[in-house]
Amino acid sequence: MAVSNIRYGAGVTKEVGMDLQNMGAKNVCLMTDKNLSQLPPVQIVMDSLSKNGISFQVYDDVRVEPTDGSFMDAIEFAKKGAFDAYVAVGGGSTMDTCKAANLYASSPHSEFLDYVNAPIGKGKPVTVPLKPLIAVPTTSGTGSETTGVAIFDYEHLKVKTGIASRAIKPTLGLVDPLHTLHMPCQVVANSGFDVLCHALESYTAIPYSMRSPCPSNPIQRPAYQGSNPISDIWAVHALQIVAKYLKRAVRNPDDLEARSKMHLASAFAGIGFGNAGVHLCHGMSYPISGLVKTYKAKEYNVDHPLVPHGLSVVLTSPAVFTFTAQMFPERHLETAGILGANIRTARIQDAGLVLADALRKFLFDLNVDDGLAALGYSKDDIPSLVKGTLPQERVTKLAPRAQSEEDLSALFEASMKLY
Amino acid sequence: MAVSNIRYGAGVTKEVGMDLQNMGAKNVCLMTDKNLSQLPPVQIVMDSLSKNGISFQVYDDVRVEPTDGSFMDAIEFAKKGAFDAYVAVGGGSTMDTCKAANLYASSPHSEFLDYVNAPIGKGKPVTVPLKPLIAVPTTSGTGSETTGVAIFDYEHLKVKTGIASRAIKPTLGLVDPLHTLHMPCQVVANSGFDVLCHALESYTAIPYSMRSPCPSNPIQRPAYQGSNPISDIWAVHALQIVAKYLKRAVRNPDDLEARSKMHLASAFAGIGFGNAGVHLCHGMSYPISGLVKTYKAKEYNVDHPLVPHGLSVVLTSPAVFTFTAQMFPERHLETAGILGANIRTARIQDAGLVLADALRKFLFDLNVDDGLAALGYSKDDIPSLVKGTLPQERVTKLAPRAQSEEDLSALFEASMKLY
Repeated sequence: MAVSNIRYGAGVTKEVGMDLQNMGAKNVCLMTDKNLSQLPPVQIVMDSLSKNGISFQVYDDVRVEPTDGSFMDAIEFAKKGAFDAYVAVGGGSTMDTCKAANLYASSPHSEFLDYVNAPIGKGKPVTVPLKPLIAVPTTSGTGSETTGVAIFDYEHLKVKTGIASRAIKPTLGLVDPLHTLHMPCQVVANSGFDVLCHALESYTAIPYSMRSPCPSNPIQRPAYQGSNPISDIWAVHALQIVAKYLKRAVRNPDDLEARSKMHLASAFAGIGFGNAGVHLCHGMSYPISGLVKTYKAKEYNVDHPLVPHGLSVVLTSPAVFTFTAQMFPERHLETAGILGANIRTARIQDAGLVLADALRKFLFDLNVDDGLAALGYSKDDIPSLVKGTLPQERVTKLAPRAQSEEDLSALFEASMKLY
Repeated sequence: MAVSNIRYGAGVTKEVGMDLQNMGAKNVCLMTDKNLSQLPPVQIVMDSLSKNGISFQVYDDVRVEPTDGSFMDAIEFAKKGAFDAYVAVGGGSTMDTCKAANLYASSPHSEFLDYVNAPIGKGKPVTVPLKPLIAVPTTSGTGSETTGVAIFDYEHLKVKTGIASRAIKPTLGLVDPLHTLHMPCQVVANSGFDVLCHALESYTAIPYSMRSPCPSNPIQRPAYQGSNPISDIWAVHALQIVAKYLKRAVRNPDDLEARSKMHLASAFAGIGFGNAGVHLCHGMSYPISGLVKTYKAKEYNVDHPLVPHGLSVVLTSPAVFTFTAQMFPERHLETAGILGANIRTARIQDAGLVLADALRKFLFDLNVDDGLAALGYSKDDIPSLVKGTLPQERVTKLAPRAQSEEDLSALFEASMKLY
């Protein structure tokens, strides 16, 4: 169990310059995206750096839902800058891009696929020392400020994959709820669904003691080690916050309490899944977002078709937990109860259905698109969606129940329409 | 919030050699005490080191409840050995001694008082890099495997004090429940009381947002930062485990489930108080153990008078929480409920008394000595006990309610007899 350094509080972002000075940084790379680069979170970081006499260069070409190409562009920038520290201001896309830039700039002779997860990449362990990276999340979903994971679209195969190593975990996360006031409501909802699924998937993942293989040398064990008594605490706690505050946070941009709680829940769920892992909702989400044709999410200011990550994850959740519940039905029922289902009279063998109903009700209340069909997918796409899921073994193997290709087809089919 | 790397599981200790090899260690210092040095936990570590070809020297002169003298002896050993890594196998005394040895061997020109907490020492921030330290706890109380704190008796003043810095936090804690099967029942009980008070004190400590002073530079902020939304989770969870499993763990040495849960609770409460801090029970405990005259705890194999730390902490807890409850009565009532009190019909203004009663019942059931009088203290000792508490500002200032000398006198007096 590796956990993370985070500092939480309204206004902690303005301390970033002192933190970097304390770390001895003199030449800092500030990464963000074009939407944020003119907004207060980035301005506050730049002011703090200047005030503390720290030189910096801004890279604001981060792509929302990054690709291998966009990662490599950021890596080039990092290599040229010879930076001694990094600050990432943004959502998961920015933090993940910055992790990759730090890694490959610190390991300049590596090929890009060296550190990418097998079987797509070589999955080599990271042994080079990295520079300090401070992550300042501006969305409340990814938890990337607490994890050693960086996700991207591998364009050649049209699938999402990533890099996973404790070595790329940020040195410090500054979890500042004031930034959440800038989020459009749809972004709050979709990033909140990511928190929801991080919590549900890590809590229902295969227990750490049942995972195989279990390499005898600790250094070869994956960051995602299965559910365990520590990640369980984070998962349950994050889920309770989602159940209590997500709807409020979506509906009212000025509800600082609800948005603050969701910002903390995002970090909590990150610590949970960063150690336990995620499974089918995430594994199946990668082709859902990777194969997008024309769907463009509302309130996302991007110039390319985009299924927001949290949406791609949550749409299969009713089908997934109906499928997995037979393995750990108590946990499925418990989480349904946290989400508001009446579980006193529920039968344990109905745990999956009860949780699925609770999820559908939750999504319906938040006006979420009615399944994969609403994103433009049809039955004809299922073989490609299944094919895109198969390489996601790193996470799908953490599901409590093994899946055949037929199982995956059935899960996608059941997710075409939700209500 | 800085959290800790721990690995939990039956048998994880035997991986220590691989961990050290992965860290590049070649010349390791193994610290333990004379009672443990012939027992399985130490043997397993030595076997693992040998098997991985790692040279090591054993230091088994750790004193149970260490002093500045015993710390300095260990520091001398560490300096001479020029080690590149440390392994501490034992309870809080051993882990704390090893932290100090690592610190001063890494900072050879420092005076001993340089890093000791003010006002007794100079409380200098640690800026030197330390060597990796792996902590293997064999008791379930201190949580020292997760904290940046090392406590000792400063013999000259007859008070406990310590060193507190994130820099001395172990690199890795191997939390192996198999070691808990070696603990005598009294050791289980007393170390469990330490967990109980870590949880209660950190949950009722002054909130982080109300603590003063609050240095503007993060590096100058203390490790003990007041209660906060993250340490709260650890505190409550640890308390739930204590309430459910401590009695079972004390009564039956073979109850691996109960002892495993307490081993995890110790680490959980450590992460909680390591960030939030402790307050009056701990602040007042230091003179209680420091001024011991003839009391020797049962089942502790030592050649000097000794009040076990957990006992010295818990005996004042009914008085302390009666005193503090007026500040955050809901939290006091909530913890009473976790400990088994019926709080449905309790009045909020009785929160302190309800919690005190729950604590007295808990201690009575476990056959704990009837207050400070049973340790050999009388009213005549109260001025010295108060005098010994005054320098413990570092923790007593974290109490939710300020205390005058008269308040402290009254708290000691109320703790003379419990039942």
